Amino acid sequence: MPTPTLERLLKERVSALVGEELAAVEEEIGQQLDSPVGLIQEMGEYIAGAGGKRLRPMLLLLAARVSGYRGPRSVRLGCVVELLHTATLIHDDVVDEAPLRRGRPSANARWGDDASVLVGDHLYSKSFAMLVRDNDRSVMETLARATVSMTEAEVFQLERKRSGVTTEAEYLRIITQKTASFISACCRIGALLGGIAPPLVEALTRYGLALGVAFQISDDALDFSADQDRLGKAIGSDLREGKRTLPLIAMLERAAVAEAEEVRALLRRRALAASELEEIRRLVIAHDGVEYARARAAEYAQAAKQDLEPFPPSDERATLALIADFVVDRDR
Amino acid sequence: MPTPTLERLLKERVSALVGEELAAVEEEIGQQLDSPVGLIQEMGEYIAGAGGKRLRPMLLLLAARVSGYRGPRSVRLGCVVELLHTATLIHDDVVDEAPLRRGRPSANARWGDDASVLVGDHLYSKSFAMLVRDNDRSVMETLARATVSMTEAEVFQLERKRSGVTTEAEYLRIITQKTASFISACCRIGALLGGIAPPLVEALTRYGLALGVAFQISDDALDFSADQDRLGKAIGSDLREGKRTLPLIAMLERAAVAEAEEVRALLRRRALAASELEEIRRLVIAHDGVEYARARAAEYAQAAKQDLEPFPPSDERATLALIADFVVDRDR
Repeated sequence: MPTPTLERLLKERVSALVGEELAAVEEEIGQQLDSPVGLIQEMGEYIAGAGGKRLRPMLLLLAARVSGYRGPRSVRLGCVVELLHTATLIHDDVVDEAPLRRGRPSANARWGDDASVLVGDHLYSKSFAMLVRDNDRSVMETLARATVSMTEAEVFQLERKRSGVTTEAEYLRIITQKTASFISACCRIGALLGGIAPPLVEALTRYGLALGVAFQISDDALDFSADQDRLGKAIGSDLREGKRTLPLIAMLERAAVAEAEEVRALLRRRALAASELEEIRRLVIAHDGVEYARARAAEYAQAAKQDLEPFPPSDERATLALIADFVVDRDR
Repeated sequence: MPTPTLERLLKERVSALVGEELAAVEEEIGQQLDSPVGLIQEMGEYIAGAGGKRLRPMLLLLAARVSGYRGPRSVRLGCVVELLHTATLIHDDVVDEAPLRRGRPSANARWGDDASVLVGDHLYSKSFAMLVRDNDRSVMETLARATVSMTEAEVFQLERKRSGVTTEAEYLRIITQKTASFISACCRIGALLGGIAPPLVEALTRYGLALGVAFQISDDALDFSADQDRLGKAIGSDLREGKRTLPLIAMLERAAVAEAEEVRALLRRRALAASELEEIRRLVIAHDGVEYARARAAEYAQAAKQDLEPFPPSDERATLALIADFVVDRDR
């Protein structure tokens, strides 16, 4: 169940701690999207103005703070990770043929796949150029590892999607490599900026990894249960795109053999009717697939909070813990 | 007119000078494409086995040699630039909906746009990770600038394509930013490896830029005149994809007003019949559009050769000059 109080509390805390830096990240993103080419400018403004959560820069900034860093590099690197994230979203929407992103037409729906592939590539290259200017080998290595991992997982996910079968272990591998490794990299970069002891760098890296897994499982559960207007994309769109996420995988494990076979047969089809999607959704909920996923997400969020224990208590540490609570307790 | 003698001579020279290193680049590419994910492995082998010219690693290796470099980094960076180039080719084919690449079905035709977008992204990230391991700021800056330039030009090209109008100046801007800046970066990286004096680094950078412009103009002229089997893609495919290249731009300048208007009207249509494509091709050739383009390419090739003059005569320098001759005198 969503708790608006937690969301409000988190917003207040984040704003008090890194609000100015987040505003500076926004400004830097705007500058980076500024281009002599009209189409880049236009698509850039549309995407930047879509009001993303800015979770990755936020985590990078807070991880830098909890590691004692004060300086200009966290804003710059916050912009680097958000540009990179935006590039991956644009390409993901092309791959998934997604019509919506954050409640509005996706870039591919509005400007075409061709423009989206190229503008995504351009944002990658802008992010890379900023990273090179920052000139820190350990930071570059962290992001290089994360992008190799992410892009490999994207292809693996597609392969599983095409095969029609994804086990829970494969699902966890995909989200760990794809979502969590990048979120983990953001936290690690913050830690590296602070120059803290290696075991503490590793602790924040682990925090980010567990948080990322919790975040993605929770996101996938929302596809079955959220309020469509708040979610900003159509309910069941993962299912429609052929993605086998944890609530569905759990349902297939728990349902009677005949029922599971019926669902598998439906999933093998190219396109599902609205009524068929609704029937699958009903079965997932009836067999507690969403509950199972939420419970797993909560375990990862708990592990993430434990990874913060080596750090002395502070507002920053408390806020990172609050983020772990929030990612498993949200409605969009 | 193609001169097989020049091609054979060039192959012999390149092989004698950097043949072993080129073989090492091939091996390194194979290792980089090795992946636990079947689809990456399969597509990687298909693409790597397509027998590209390896022009970019070749130039990097020769530029390194002419700058006095001997060591392992030129092979590693040769692999970096070829992986990056391969990624751009895969994405370009998605954007252009190209059915063929190097005489075989393109990756998108065979595995789909979704797999091609993702595998392209993965190759980018592998290239980036190798570059970070190499850990040379000036080399990274060179490639960062080139990729920002290339991807910006890709979007600009799409914008001009959609508008239906491309002037000669816009065409030159596109190919300079897109093709030539990357070829120039390869030559510059070779020069940086050699640690030669800045004016010599700039001379090789300029050589690469002029060579790249000559190469692309020549490539575009081949779209109107080449032997389809040798070219490895369909004649007129640029035209079919809506690309306005120099032979066409020159024809529109030279043709009678009524004739040019007729062609412009055809070009505004969504799809052209084979007979209409053939009619445009006939007009381009009749108005010496291909000859004009070839003459412009030859000027750039000449300028490239002049940029080599500050270097003392050597087999490497002679081979770089031979490449400039070859790019404007080939049939594929």
